[in-house]
Amino acid sequence: MIEPIRPTADAVEILDQRALPERMRYIRCTRADMVVDAIQSLAVRGAPAIAVAGLYGLWVEALALAGHTNGTDELEAAKDRIRNARPTAVNLAWAVDKVWATRPGEGSALVRYLRREADALYQEESLRNERMAQFGAALLPPSSRVLTHCNTGSLATIGLGTALGVIRQAYADGRIDQVWVDETRPLLQGSRLTAWELVQDGIPATLITDSMAASLMAQGKVDAVLVGADRIAANGDTANKIGTYGLAVLAHFHHIPFYVVAPLSTIDRTLSSGNAIPIEERAAHEVREIRGQAIAPRDMPVFNPAFDVTPSSLISAIVTDTGVAQGDFETGIAKLLEQEGKGTPDA
Amino acid sequence: MIEPIRPTADAVEILDQRALPERMRYIRCTRADMVVDAIQSLAVRGAPAIAVAGLYGLWVEALALAGHTNGTDELEAAKDRIRNARPTAVNLAWAVDKVWATRPGEGSALVRYLRREADALYQEESLRNERMAQFGAALLPPSSRVLTHCNTGSLATIGLGTALGVIRQAYADGRIDQVWVDETRPLLQGSRLTAWELVQDGIPATLITDSMAASLMAQGKVDAVLVGADRIAANGDTANKIGTYGLAVLAHFHHIPFYVVAPLSTIDRTLSSGNAIPIEERAAHEVREIRGQAIAPRDMPVFNPAFDVTPSSLISAIVTDTGVAQGDFETGIAKLLEQEGKGTPDA
Repeated sequence: MIEPIRPTADAVEILDQRALPERMRYIRCTRADMVVDAIQSLAVRGAPAIAVAGLYGLWVEALALAGHTNGTDELEAAKDRIRNARPTAVNLAWAVDKVWATRPGEGSALVRYLRREADALYQEESLRNERMAQFGAALLPPSSRVLTHCNTGSLATIGLGTALGVIRQAYADGRIDQVWVDETRPLLQGSRLTAWELVQDGIPATLITDSMAASLMAQGKVDAVLVGADRIAANGDTANKIGTYGLAVLAHFHHIPFYVVAPLSTIDRTLSSGNAIPIEERAAHEVREIRGQAIAPRDMPVFNPAFDVTPSSLISAIVTDTGVAQGDFETGIAKLLEQEGKGTPDA
Repeated sequence: MIEPIRPTADAVEILDQRALPERMRYIRCTRADMVVDAIQSLAVRGAPAIAVAGLYGLWVEALALAGHTNGTDELEAAKDRIRNARPTAVNLAWAVDKVWATRPGEGSALVRYLRREADALYQEESLRNERMAQFGAALLPPSSRVLTHCNTGSLATIGLGTALGVIRQAYADGRIDQVWVDETRPLLQGSRLTAWELVQDGIPATLITDSMAASLMAQGKVDAVLVGADRIAANGDTANKIGTYGLAVLAHFHHIPFYVVAPLSTIDRTLSSGNAIPIEERAAHEVREIRGQAIAPRDMPVFNPAFDVTPSSLISAIVTDTGVAQGDFETGIAKLLEQEGKGTPDA
């Protein structure tokens, strides 16, 4: 199993996903801002993995500051920097707030507590993925040809993955004939990361550009679309990697089921709909360059939103670690959150 | 005005569009196969430009073979190689067949005839574009924000361009506030070529990835989509650069007009619908690499169709050099072809 985050005795090592698939290189982080940098530069990505990385970042900072004058204030400031490292991923802020709220004072007890909480979230995410994979795989008929977007695998989520976890499980169950992987411009998480994970697992997969999905659907070559989520509103509206919404419209037009796979921690019940989800805009060079090479005039203006919002009316089902919401998402999601009980996010 | 094709006294110089926007480099072609290679390697692209390049290729070959034993047979074989250099672009085969059918014997008369015909098509394409631009611009309301795909400008078509010609004219008429240029993976004709042409012209334009179009439409930031065509069936079904069909579905879903702009020579009246249009599949490396740099695992399987087919039911209007077809495309197209009369393609 691929490990995107590897805690050691005195640091957290983060797999630098920007260098994949050519090089497997870990960044050793011993301070919070090194983790913040890894998150913001997309060395680590995917909402669940970001949250785990954030908690380990808090732990290494507490370790580094132990005994410092003003250590408490500095740790709190670092906590805020971690919490706000990426605005769209709700899991990060949720996990940091939850852990921070119940911290036991200062010193070594605090350090041990933070490490334990980070380890616990790591384990929890892994188990969540297994449950999601089971729920999701059951939705797919045998011999399915599925399309997935971005990277929602081990690299993004710890463990099996969300949408890719469902695909892994469904493949193991004999329900998958073919996986279509779109490249997911601008940052190519599909071609660089998802393709790499599928090759490693020996699951039959074919790479396409984002612009080819519609044509495949028209030819009847896609039986389901599976995507992850960065944030889900109480009504089921889903913010996810840019391009998700377009795929949802295309799937709707071609009568193809469109599944969102995400842990309950992705649901932000303070948001009644997707309209209020903040959309991060990223730097122009991500579009004007590909892996450092110019592909457009140097001063060309760029629009580069990292996410889009898919209204729940275009979603066939939301697969979570507690169960599947379908039809009336508002009620379905509320029920799933109730079942979850204590573990529920309240961002 | 940018010149993608520059005939000299004894050669045809073809602007190597693969090197744009960094370098402006012409390939000097003195034999047919150099032109065939330029066409197949996409140094020159866009259905109208390919047809013009093909005719000049025939001329330089006749010039090179003049006086050779077996020159006539060799020229005929070269003619077939040119004619079939790219299967989807109907203009090339049409232009070559038309010119070949009425050729005057051999020798210098033939050479002069072929040059004259190539020059005539060059002029004709330029005039066609001006007429299309006028017809198309009239369809756009003032302050339009339009989205375009691939490159349909001077680089592709000789002169103003097809879809980009309409945009140029509409901008000159004060009807354009904003042009959205999608990058058009895999070969990035949007980011490399269309963006470059618009920057040169000082028309306000913003680059997006292909996956961002849906989100822009949902935000109400696109008033019309304008694309070119590689081949149009008698019923209006349109083959064009991969990604066109997806944009048409998205435009339909968001109630945004979707315009195809192409000369009548793009219409293949021997095809009753788009189902019969052959779709060229191109090499895997175009998707696995971007400008020579790997972006996916080396042995990742790839699906890489160069074109897709948009059914006429998703098209608001087809703008040609003779007029605009709307509604009942079958009748509309037949009328336009009738008006055209002598100049009509009969591929």
